[in-house]
Amino acid sequence: MLDELFAKLENSYAEMVSIRRHLHQHPELSFQEYETAKFIVSFYEKLEIEVNSNVGGNGVVAKVYGKKPGKTVALRADFDALPIQDEKDVPYKSTVPGVMHACGHDGHTATLLLLAKALNELKDNLEGTYVFIHQHAEEYAPGGAISMIEDGCLEGVDVIFGTHLWASVPTGTIQYRTGPIMAAADRFEIEIQGKGGHGAQPHTTKDAIVTASQLVLNLQQIVSRRVNPIDSAVVSIGSFTAQNAFNVIADKAKLIGTVRTFNEELRSFIEEEIERIVHGTCYMSGSTYDYKYFRGYPPVVNHAKETEFLAACAHLAAEVKIVEETEPDMGGEDFAYYLQKVPGTFFYTGAKPEPDDAAYPHHHPRFDIDEKAMLIAAKTLGTAAIKVHNE
Amino acid sequence: MLDELFAKLENSYAEMVSIRRHLHQHPELSFQEYETAKFIVSFYEKLEIEVNSNVGGNGVVAKVYGKKPGKTVALRADFDALPIQDEKDVPYKSTVPGVMHACGHDGHTATLLLLAKALNELKDNLEGTYVFIHQHAEEYAPGGAISMIEDGCLEGVDVIFGTHLWASVPTGTIQYRTGPIMAAADRFEIEIQGKGGHGAQPHTTKDAIVTASQLVLNLQQIVSRRVNPIDSAVVSIGSFTAQNAFNVIADKAKLIGTVRTFNEELRSFIEEEIERIVHGTCYMSGSTYDYKYFRGYPPVVNHAKETEFLAACAHLAAEVKIVEETEPDMGGEDFAYYLQKVPGTFFYTGAKPEPDDAAYPHHHPRFDIDEKAMLIAAKTLGTAAIKVHNE
Amino acid sequence: MLDELFAKLENSYAEMVSIRRHLHQHPELSFQEYETAKFIVSFYEKLEIEVNSNVGGNGVVAKVYGKKPGKTVALRADFDALPIQDEKDVPYKSTVPGVMHACGHDGHTATLLLLAKALNELKDNLEGTYVFIHQHAEEYAPGGAISMIEDGCLEGVDVIFGTHLWASVPTGTIQYRTGPIMAAADRFEIEIQGKGGHGAQPHTTKDAIVTASQLVLNLQQIVSRRVNPIDSAVVSIGSFTAQNAFNVIADKAKLIGTVRTFNEELRSFIEEEIERIVHGTCYMSGSTYDYKYFRGYPPVVNHAKETEFLAACAHLAAEVKIVEETEPDMGGEDFAYYLQKVPGTFFYTGAKPEPDDAAYPHHHPRFDIDEKAMLIAAKTLGTAAIKVHNE
Amino acid sequence: MLDELFAKLENSYAEMVSIRRHLHQHPELSFQEYETAKFIVSFYEKLEIEVNSNVGGNGVVAKVYGKKPGKTVALRADFDALPIQDEKDVPYKSTVPGVMHACGHDGHTATLLLLAKALNELKDNLEGTYVFIHQHAEEYAPGGAISMIEDGCLEGVDVIFGTHLWASVPTGTIQYRTGPIMAAADRFEIEIQGKGGHGAQPHTTKDAIVTASQLVLNLQQIVSRRVNPIDSAVVSIGSFTAQNAFNVIADKAKLIGTVRTFNEELRSFIEEEIERIVHGTCYMSGSTYDYKYFRGYPPVVNHAKETEFLAACAHLAAEVKIVEETEPDMGGEDFAYYLQKVPGTFFYTGAKPEPDDAAYPHHHPRFDIDEKAMLIAAKTLGTAAIKVHNE
Repeated sequence: MLDELFAKLENSYAEMVSIRRHLHQHPELSFQEYETAKFIVSFYEKLEIEVNSNVGGNGVVAKVYGKKPGKTVALRADFDALPIQDEKDVPYKSTVPGVMHACGHDGHTATLLLLAKALNELKDNLEGTYVFIHQHAEEYAPGGAISMIEDGCLEGVDVIFGTHLWASVPTGTIQYRTGPIMAAADRFEIEIQGKGGHGAQPHTTKDAIVTASQLVLNLQQIVSRRVNPIDSAVVSIGSFTAQNAFNVIADKAKLIGTVRTFNEELRSFIEEEIERIVHGTCYMSGSTYDYKYFRGYPPVVNHAKETEFLAACAHLAAEVKIVEETEPDMGGEDFAYYLQKVPGTFFYTGAKPEPDDAAYPHHHPRFDIDEKAMLIAAKTLGTAAIKVHNE
Repeated sequence: MLDELFAKLENSYAEMVSIRRHLHQHPELSFQEYETAKFIVSFYEKLEIEVNSNVGGNGVVAKVYGKKPGKTVALRADFDALPIQDEKDVPYKSTVPGVMHACGHDGHTATLLLLAKALNELKDNLEGTYVFIHQHAEEYAPGGAISMIEDGCLEGVDVIFGTHLWASVPTGTIQYRTGPIMAAADRFEIEIQGKGGHGAQPHTTKDAIVTASQLVLNLQQIVSRRVNPIDSAVVSIGSFTAQNAFNVIADKAKLIGTVRTFNEELRSFIEEEIERIVHGTCYMSGSTYDYKYFRGYPPVVNHAKETEFLAACAHLAAEVKIVEETEPDMGGEDFAYYLQKVPGTFFYTGAKPEPDDAAYPHHHPRFDIDEKAMLIAAKTLGTAAIKVHNE
Repeated sequence: MLDELFAKLENSYAEMVSIRRHLHQHPELSFQEYETAKFIVSFYEKLEIEVNSNVGGNGVVAKVYGKKPGKTVALRADFDALPIQDEKDVPYKSTVPGVMHACGHDGHTATLLLLAKALNELKDNLEGTYVFIHQHAEEYAPGGAISMIEDGCLEGVDVIFGTHLWASVPTGTIQYRTGPIMAAADRFEIEIQGKGGHGAQPHTTKDAIVTASQLVLNLQQIVSRRVNPIDSAVVSIGSFTAQNAFNVIADKAKLIGTVRTFNEELRSFIEEEIERIVHGTCYMSGSTYDYKYFRGYPPVVNHAKETEFLAACAHLAAEVKIVEETEPDMGGEDFAYYLQKVPGTFFYTGAKPEPDDAAYPHHHPRFDIDEKAMLIAAKTLGTAAIKVHNE
Repeated sequence: MLDELFAKLENSYAEMVSIRRHLHQHPELSFQEYETAKFIVSFYEKLEIEVNSNVGGNGVVAKVYGKKPGKTVALRADFDALPIQDEKDVPYKSTVPGVMHACGHDGHTATLLLLAKALNELKDNLEGTYVFIHQHAEEYAPGGAISMIEDGCLEGVDVIFGTHLWASVPTGTIQYRTGPIMAAADRFEIEIQGKGGHGAQPHTTKDAIVTASQLVLNLQQIVSRRVNPIDSAVVSIGSFTAQNAFNVIADKAKLIGTVRTFNEELRSFIEEEIERIVHGTCYMSGSTYDYKYFRGYPPVVNHAKETEFLAACAHLAAEVKIVEETEPDMGGEDFAYYLQKVPGTFFYTGAKPEPDDAAYPHHHPRFDIDEKAMLIAAKTLGTAAIKVHNE
């Protein structure tokens, strides 16, 4: 059974790559993934697989029914892209200026589509029901998961699995972890209102760029001085905008950033500390501010039984050389919401491009994945999906 | 003679305001002032005044010939606007998003047009020749002056006068100064190249926003620690851009700013100090940079004889209550180039809106002028133009 | 047996307090603890307990021989003080200006002395040998442990126990942890050489205070941006000195600080990052520097079997309400060296003064302990010492 | 007459050098100049010149009476030293650890003593009265001038002259200026009260060194952003002290600095801005502060007539090659108080050591003067003193 699945997946690898590259060239931002959703729906329709579109937004849910009784197992892949300019020099480079699949969601989608196709071909011999959750908007809170769940995507689901292609880990490695594996991922926005003026007359202004720059540096002290070094926390400013002519002093500056934590107390503490630092920094220059803090996804907390099961399944694909426990990661994932509703686990599939200097961090303008990892992800998810009925 | 001129100007005040407000609603950026230039040309053509367009770019030069022999005197007004969003709540607010007459050049133009009209009507009784230089692109180096001069706008000119409506000085005041009155105004651009990545993974990146923020603060020390406190200098960052998603760490950040000085040695010193500080700051985070320094206008250096003459003329308009020597200003002006070629002077015409809290600095999003100052500027320039033949 | 020990300890509590307060009033800095060592030796001599002084410096080792065969078990207490001015308002306040027992070593010593006295009285019924290691110079690397070990203090020792009175944890709590419980504790010194001068002439100088202040802030980024947030690290500057007249610009500034880590790779990385940041910061002002990094104690790594044994023993004293596993602490301890040689464990004895606002952090000028914790420490160490022969 | 004076001064040059070097080896801090005062008194007593000690503190006033009627002219020299460690390698290096004549007051004193001796020898041919004001405590507010004036040192004085040996200006140059020549020189102290603790536990503390370092940098913005660049101002921190063990987090940090301005409005503005910045900076870390601002000397404002007279006199010594107007200097001088009471002028006597690399700024640990400048200073002061009667 597993042999047949693996053979089918291997045969479909060229198509998997082709789909992934098509999606890579046509990335769409979170909540705007109209064409990508159509593409997915069309794929299923051609195969005459049951498919529902507009699930909780741009979400798509397909279902394959095994002939034999069994559990209902959900597999999830996200499909949105990021507001980053693709700087890679490859034929399948993004064709959309300023938008890029810089996190591997194109690969997740290609993986899940071909896995669904293979399982559909094997359905007469399969137990249970297979729910393919193609989720939009993972990159931007409130995310697509929560609305897809509200729209019923988990109805009847007994267990869920998801993976992330992980470009910092060599291809051939599967990483798992019971308990928290990804962090609470919050967003904040700070708008500094100074007083603009002529670049040659600083004394008549309240220079918003200077105030905001101070703020960026002052915020470093939250992690360096105020968080217990035994705890983990991140405060990052992703965006600093105060675009003006060269001979102007900025009236306003806007900072947008993220906070990552693993527990609620620290999360609230940092939310408050940011305001304290913003307040003090603005006081010095007599500026005012608007500070907004948006709670994003909760931590992704894997279930113990399903995590151990997945780790056991991971050994079965020949391409997998290493299955290992990993440290938690400060990234966030709205897969967290699925795990609040049903048992399951979220794991990493190593996808590091070779040679070493071809590997860039997720969200980097030159980010890419080792496409062979898609086959490994498909085999591992497929193994878990087929074998979970006997757990 | 002067009485007639003053009466004509007073009668044309409504038209002056109307033209100024029309221009205010239709601002154009430096080097893109096509419609404004057409408007000016059309004004002169309707009055059958000799006019040349496309002088050194979008510049316009009109000429009125007095019947009697005399000097050739040039009067100059600039007509470009700034990349600033108009935030005023007035009927004549800018209709162009992100572009605004935030420095009063609309007023300069209206002033000069109506002064030209009045002098044209009086030409049978006038001595000499009157050259009306409508200059484009004062706000952005290399500026329009230098190309208009190369294109001949100063040919035969014996003396030149120019003024700036000055919103920080009460209406009714004229300010003059022999020697340097405005600063050398240079521009610089610094692009920091860090290493982008995911907001939750700072240790895999070189955070360009943090590096650029440090740089903004480190640059403060040029003025606070390295320039002789007896000297005057400004280093301002007008633009800081690193626009990304909230959960990204910035790959790049771009700073654009200005340097103001009154002497060449200090100008060169600051150009070098910026690079030293950029180098050290980037070294710390292992980032690289691209630093460009563009020399802008030289200082505006007024000629003594013409300045004293102008100060004497300024007393003749009844609306002028105060004529006073002023400190030099750190602003730059490409009027500097005219004064390198012919004698003349550049002065400030107080134009502060009332009440006090309606007054904003030049280049501020709520900048406005007291329009009555246009009449004062017209009278003062006109007086000087008529009386200079006897000097 | 344990009952007898506990009764004796309870009876000696007043003496324990008295000794602790005597030591508190007469603190001595690391490597200068001559009088404290004499006091300890004299205590043992009066009781006719075998005692050796000048062990590896100012260290003192006493021995009590049980009548029955058994293991040789070492118990260790440190006895040096800190260069901190005692700001408490208590009768037993330090009498030495600028020197203070701000970490509880006075309490450790009193605890061990009275425990030794009690065990000595019970020796006819005891198994094995009891080695009381009174260690000098725990607060200042290279510390006293390493030289006491070289001088033989662990000869024949089978197992070692040590505790720290812990003022942040309520009295009645014992905390333990297998594996790393305290961090590698390194020291660094940075001397900035700028160029001094008159306070009114900054441009003729290289202001060492400004450079060093920048450095303090730049170093914050090691923890906030360069260390994996999953790892734990601390970089603290404890001392900043540039003492001059008010109208001088500082020629030099000196920073002294500490680095804490739990693994060797991160330790080396931070050592290098500090230099990179020092180099870049000094480059900006044209200053030079002298940077020295001294490796202090390695992490304290508790042995599993002995830690579990100790946790079991801790329940036996009636005063102990809570025995709990703890997180590792970023503090350093040269107890680390003993555990590199023989099995054992180091644990925390809660000693928080009441009410809550009487509790200050270790090394704070108002630090104090709840003296009742000494009795708990003595009972717990004593229980382990007596019962370990049967493990 | 002038020839005789010059000849006497030339002959006494060796003694002048000897006295200056004696004083250089025995510097005394402001308000503690007991031995220096005795030395001066003794010098006069040996010559049987009328001398008063303890004038307004350690001040000394001697008087020489010319035989002919004339004005009473005061000449002033200060004689205190600085808390700086002498780092020069010369035979006449300071013998007092941490105290040094780093501003040339030793030279001022030697100059005035030998000038007094020469004038005394010529008194039978002189007009008027000569008052030699040897002032203590110029370096430290409130200074000695104010108390010496209160104690009568200016009684009957018609005019006063003073000079400063100026190590940045070549020997042979005299610099003068009408109006403000030196700045208002204020002092401020800021004590940051954070919360101390263990270096490994930053989150339990409020790190006073980090807060104070931020403050140092934030204060840079007063000059770089808030003061009109046309105005002159200095804010310098001369002293930063937070001396602790390496593994401590600082409870307190103390900053001491100076503010220099030329007008009262800016002086008050900066006093307030410092507090605003201290407040905002401390707010961020929850620290408290104690801020004290002490107004020091007012600006030194030279009188026009006396300044022009002095400039004319300066040409008469053969060693003087250049007499030039100078920019104002940001240094302070309590000579200001004398000029508030009587007409006079304060000028600079170039005293730059050769070669160039032997010249260090005033208040530098390697500061020295070109001793030949003392002769020039004596001749110039002497010329003015003799010739002023005919003005």
